Amino acid sequence: MERQRHQGMAKNTYMRWRLPLVCLLWELAMIILFGVFVRFGAEADAHWEEEKREMNLTSDMENDFYFRYPSFQDVHVMIFVGFGFLMTFLKRYGFGAVGFNFLLAAFGIQWALLMQGWFHSFKNGKILIGVENLINADFCVGSVCIAFGAILGKTSPIQLLVMTLFQVTLFSVNEYILLNLLHVKDAGGSMTIHTFGAYFGLTVTRVLYRPNLEQSKDKQGSVYHSDLFAMIGTLYLWMYWPSFNSAISDHGDAQHRSAINTYCSLAACVLTTMAFSSMLQKKGKLDMVHIQNATLAGGVAVGTSAEMMLTPYGSLIVGSVSGVVSTVGYVYFTPFLESRLHIQDTCGIHNLHAMPGLIGGIVGAITAAAATEDVYGKEGFVKAFDFTGVYQTRTPSIQGGFQAAGIVVSLLMAFAGGAIVGGILKLPIWGDAAAENCFEDGVYWEVPEDEESDA
Amino acid sequence: MERQRHQGMAKNTYMRWRLPLVCLLWELAMIILFGVFVRFGAEADAHWEEEKREMNLTSDMENDFYFRYPSFQDVHVMIFVGFGFLMTFLKRYGFGAVGFNFLLAAFGIQWALLMQGWFHSFKNGKILIGVENLINADFCVGSVCIAFGAILGKTSPIQLLVMTLFQVTLFSVNEYILLNLLHVKDAGGSMTIHTFGAYFGLTVTRVLYRPNLEQSKDKQGSVYHSDLFAMIGTLYLWMYWPSFNSAISDHGDAQHRSAINTYCSLAACVLTTMAFSSMLQKKGKLDMVHIQNATLAGGVAVGTSAEMMLTPYGSLIVGSVSGVVSTVGYVYFTPFLESRLHIQDTCGIHNLHAMPGLIGGIVGAITAAAATEDVYGKEGFVKAFDFTGVYQTRTPSIQGGFQAAGIVVSLLMAFAGGAIVGGILKLPIWGDAAAENCFEDGVYWEVPEDEESDA
Amino acid sequence: MERQRHQGMAKNTYMRWRLPLVCLLWELAMIILFGVFVRFGAEADAHWEEEKREMNLTSDMENDFYFRYPSFQDVHVMIFVGFGFLMTFLKRYGFGAVGFNFLLAAFGIQWALLMQGWFHSFKNGKILIGVENLINADFCVGSVCIAFGAILGKTSPIQLLVMTLFQVTLFSVNEYILLNLLHVKDAGGSMTIHTFGAYFGLTVTRVLYRPNLEQSKDKQGSVYHSDLFAMIGTLYLWMYWPSFNSAISDHGDAQHRSAINTYCSLAACVLTTMAFSSMLQKKGKLDMVHIQNATLAGGVAVGTSAEMMLTPYGSLIVGSVSGVVSTVGYVYFTPFLESRLHIQDTCGIHNLHAMPGLIGGIVGAITAAAATEDVYGKEGFVKAFDFTGVYQTRTPSIQGGFQAAGIVVSLLMAFAGGAIVGGILKLPIWGDAAAENCFEDGVYWEVPEDEESDA
Repeated sequence: MERQRHQGMAKNTYMRWRLPLVCLLWELAMIILFGVFVRFGAEADAHWEEEKREMNLTSDMENDFYFRYPSFQDVHVMIFVGFGFLMTFLKRYGFGAVGFNFLLAAFGIQWALLMQGWFHSFKNGKILIGVENLINADFCVGSVCIAFGAILGKTSPIQLLVMTLFQVTLFSVNEYILLNLLHVKDAGGSMTIHTFGAYFGLTVTRVLYRPNLEQSKDKQGSVYHSDLFAMIGTLYLWMYWPSFNSAISDHGDAQHRSAINTYCSLAACVLTTMAFSSMLQKKGKLDMVHIQNATLAGGVAVGTSAEMMLTPYGSLIVGSVSGVVSTVGYVYFTPFLESRLHIQDTCGIHNLHAMPGLIGGIVGAITAAAATEDVYGKEGFVKAFDFTGVYQTRTPSIQGGFQAAGIVVSLLMAFAGGAIVGGILKLPIWGDAAAENCFEDGVYWEVPEDEESDA
Repeated sequence: MERQRHQGMAKNTYMRWRLPLVCLLWELAMIILFGVFVRFGAEADAHWEEEKREMNLTSDMENDFYFRYPSFQDVHVMIFVGFGFLMTFLKRYGFGAVGFNFLLAAFGIQWALLMQGWFHSFKNGKILIGVENLINADFCVGSVCIAFGAILGKTSPIQLLVMTLFQVTLFSVNEYILLNLLHVKDAGGSMTIHTFGAYFGLTVTRVLYRPNLEQSKDKQGSVYHSDLFAMIGTLYLWMYWPSFNSAISDHGDAQHRSAINTYCSLAACVLTTMAFSSMLQKKGKLDMVHIQNATLAGGVAVGTSAEMMLTPYGSLIVGSVSGVVSTVGYVYFTPFLESRLHIQDTCGIHNLHAMPGLIGGIVGAITAAAATEDVYGKEGFVKAFDFTGVYQTRTPSIQGGFQAAGIVVSLLMAFAGGAIVGGILKLPIWGDAAAENCFEDGVYWEVPEDEESDA
Repeated sequence: MERQRHQGMAKNTYMRWRLPLVCLLWELAMIILFGVFVRFGAEADAHWEEEKREMNLTSDMENDFYFRYPSFQDVHVMIFVGFGFLMTFLKRYGFGAVGFNFLLAAFGIQWALLMQGWFHSFKNGKILIGVENLINADFCVGSVCIAFGAILGKTSPIQLLVMTLFQVTLFSVNEYILLNLLHVKDAGGSMTIHTFGAYFGLTVTRVLYRPNLEQSKDKQGSVYHSDLFAMIGTLYLWMYWPSFNSAISDHGDAQHRSAINTYCSLAACVLTTMAFSSMLQKKGKLDMVHIQNATLAGGVAVGTSAEMMLTPYGSLIVGSVSGVVSTVGYVYFTPFLESRLHIQDTCGIHNLHAMPGLIGGIVGAITAAAATEDVYGKEGFVKAFDFTGVYQTRTPSIQGGFQAAGIVVSLLMAFAGGAIVGGILKLPIWGDAAAENCFEDGVYWEVPEDEESDA
């Protein structure tokens, strides 16, 4: 199976030297760069006792660790178990789903600590890290996990590592443009994580279009137990999404509010997803694909606005709409994208992340534009949008315009970046499998023998 | 399969218009009601900066979010993964177990935010919500998940939504009577959640008695892997139960104590469950049904008393006893209930929630009645039982009496409510399946084809 | 199957009276001992209001509960789901893996609360417990779960309970020697948990050597879905390990730093594990055994030093090295240990815990020896190593020496203890199975009938 011939072209999926080489060289690079650049931030450094006195803090509880660590762990679970298991729905690609997600995320968080560190935590030649950097690294990798969903089953682990390297880089640049240059709010990452990640992944899978993929069509489905494994991923993403959207919001009311808005949006999303899943099917039966995915759209769609005064009622509306859009997407758009636009989107990230991400960006822009001192309070208004320093004169409507600009920038970065990275991944040196061996763990994994006759 | 004939009665399980209609109308109702009533509480509102000053708080850490959010997330996992996966033990009902639990809980938490909000968080015409409301909504839905266990596999999703609507309403009324009128303590919900939820569900399943259920008997068992999926549910319930019982206790020692008592009770419960599981079986082998369920009885049985000075030693006793009672229940009571009382209890909630819930209520009453200023300290005594205002003159023994009254009220509400709601669910319009199609995902779900030959 | 004859020796695996007797008597002993000794510590006692005033605390947030409870819950998940599911990889031993782990851990935490309590929390004749005791009890049991990995599938539940009783006792003595007599730092337990637990387990399995184990060789492998279940265990251990290593560190910077170091080490470990898994295999394919286990070595290997100023860069190095060592161990050492030294190590704990534990101890000793006031700050230096009281004059290099002594003591305790306990477990009264029935749930569990033809 290592050396396959297909359509006159040999596909060499032999990983023995290439994968170790990439892994080891890159880890070595990480060690060197961390050695040169990365140090503990003040709150994680043993000098904290002195620091605490200088900052006039009376309690260790004021260490940012205690404000953010529980949310960090929830986000961590979402990245590794959430995304990992969500993709185990394929009957014979469970090892690849969980294992490659593990690999790319473990590499990605290291590279993200550096990239985001240079942009946001760089001081006197050193990157100073704390728990918020860990969360942001996980967030950044989240966008890679999303893109992975589009190309799931069709790429080699080396391609995934290469994509991670570039996508993390581009993510960090895009994030810097949005947060620092445009001064946009996006705590839950509707734009930076979901819109960027999804359209990046969709562009990559378009460039990697495989005309003969129907040869492995029998492996693109699920079996009974693989659908249950996928539900583990779904539920952990769904349950911990309030932590995701609130993890890096301001201490106090903003974190509190983010969690409530996200909770409400997700609850509403489940009902409209179930409704449309049944309605769009002649037999009226529910489809696990929708339940596994579209129920999460409500979390994506309030990613930008959750920390704003969206209100529980606004959250229900956004969640309801995004559930409908996402489910309709699975039924109508995904087949259309594949047949007409040659976009093969294995997990349907267009429905779960791309469209809801756009909704999230737009809702964020509107919510920001509609902000008033009356609703936020004088201090809360300034704090919520960080209208200080050079941004002191920004009005809500101008902020709304910048938020909208953030969507456009994210889209452009995704298309351009995805096209370039897709082109790189198309090079015939990365060891991807032939079309008839896609969605098949046996290509890159030792698979237990009795599996053939079993699952 | 959609239109089945059985015993001369057609069972129409076609959901295409009914389910979407119910889901969408109800979600619309939620949006309208939330729009009219629900707003952020002070700690989640952008006016928090001003609020903080007024309340003389020096740190954002004093925001209730940080006292309760980690426990909230644990409770959230218990409701969606815990209950959801606990019920996946059936060989062909995994989608229904996880999926319907997801649906009813997502609807239930919205309706619970309103119902509980009107009773407990209503101020100037608005329901003001914060993290504690989210926890309470999850708690309320927990009682529905429990009742779902009794009717698992025998009801349509619409029946479940109808039951949720009514049960959440009755739960909130019962909770109001107990907590506000009787001034009863029940932080972990032995009475309000477990006793009420379980006897409600048992009454419903009694009313819905199906004489021909043995026709689907072959599907009422488990397969090897479905038992492992169920263990995921069991363990998450078991591990996070200390969070459940402490989530809404008073800040400080009460939360701390609740977690310790629950931890001890659950640990003891595992040993007595294993002992009796082996002992009550001729071959002396362990039965997964007991391990999956009876090991959790220790959490139920300290639900009321965990925040009191039950002591670790008292917790071990309560946990030990409840493990025995629950396991004995699975072996002897469940068959008895089915054959003699026509109560078909799919998951054995009588053993896991009803009896341990009663134990919990009684232990709570005794612990309260035995309270002394010596044990609690002068201030701690008043704080633990909230003996302030009109309750200033209550003595421990009177409190014990009211606690006992709380059990009786919960039982009466459960029987009466269950009878009425069971009657409503018996109407032939909700699309339940015929007896031979119970415990079968294929009725309401698209099931992967190769499942037939596989799992 | 209960009464088997093998090689002329009858193996009686009938548990009906023996297992209940042990469970019930021991639980009774726990109740009595808890009744005599265990009480709530000040922060969990209802006298906390008075206590708070005495300690000059202004906020309930200062209760240790809020500093440690989220980490406690993560550790709890690691012990019960992490270790439990990690061991479900065997095709027909999933019930035993999860169920026996549940049993021994539930007993072990009770006994550990007592043993560790007598050594560390004993005051005026009472053991005063709080959340830190719960964490430490879980830690102690972690070392038993590790040892369980070596003998997985080859022992009866009674043997496991007997081993737990003795191992918890020895663990507590060893921990007391290290932490109190040698004044060694080991917050994440590289020495006390991993080195001790693993070498203890390896010694036990050596004593219990079964020459005919190849008779059950066909059951020692995995099937496709059992490998996915095991990945649930792996990922929860991996994700929550930062909580494990930081759970009992000093408040503030130490907890913060521990989490960051562990996060970095684990991320690096994944890359080197993947690299060597592919490289050491002729076909270049990845092996799930390595991904499930060796990726975790990075957490073990920074167990001692994570709370020190190891730096993110140092963590990457330690993690990288331990991933390599562990993977190489699985490929070369495990077969060698079995064939030459007659050490049958079912889960390969030598590679996941023993060697990385030693690395962890050594790295800890070096990091301590290299500490300077410059790096830690004057106050931080004293605080980090607790150089107060009689230890005021200790220098870093002396501390390094004591750390190294801690490794040696742990090893000696493990070998001696393991030999004795192994001898006890060899007595023919505990109901272990014959060689051909090892790795088979059917011996001690009711297994669903259709399993035969299925999984």
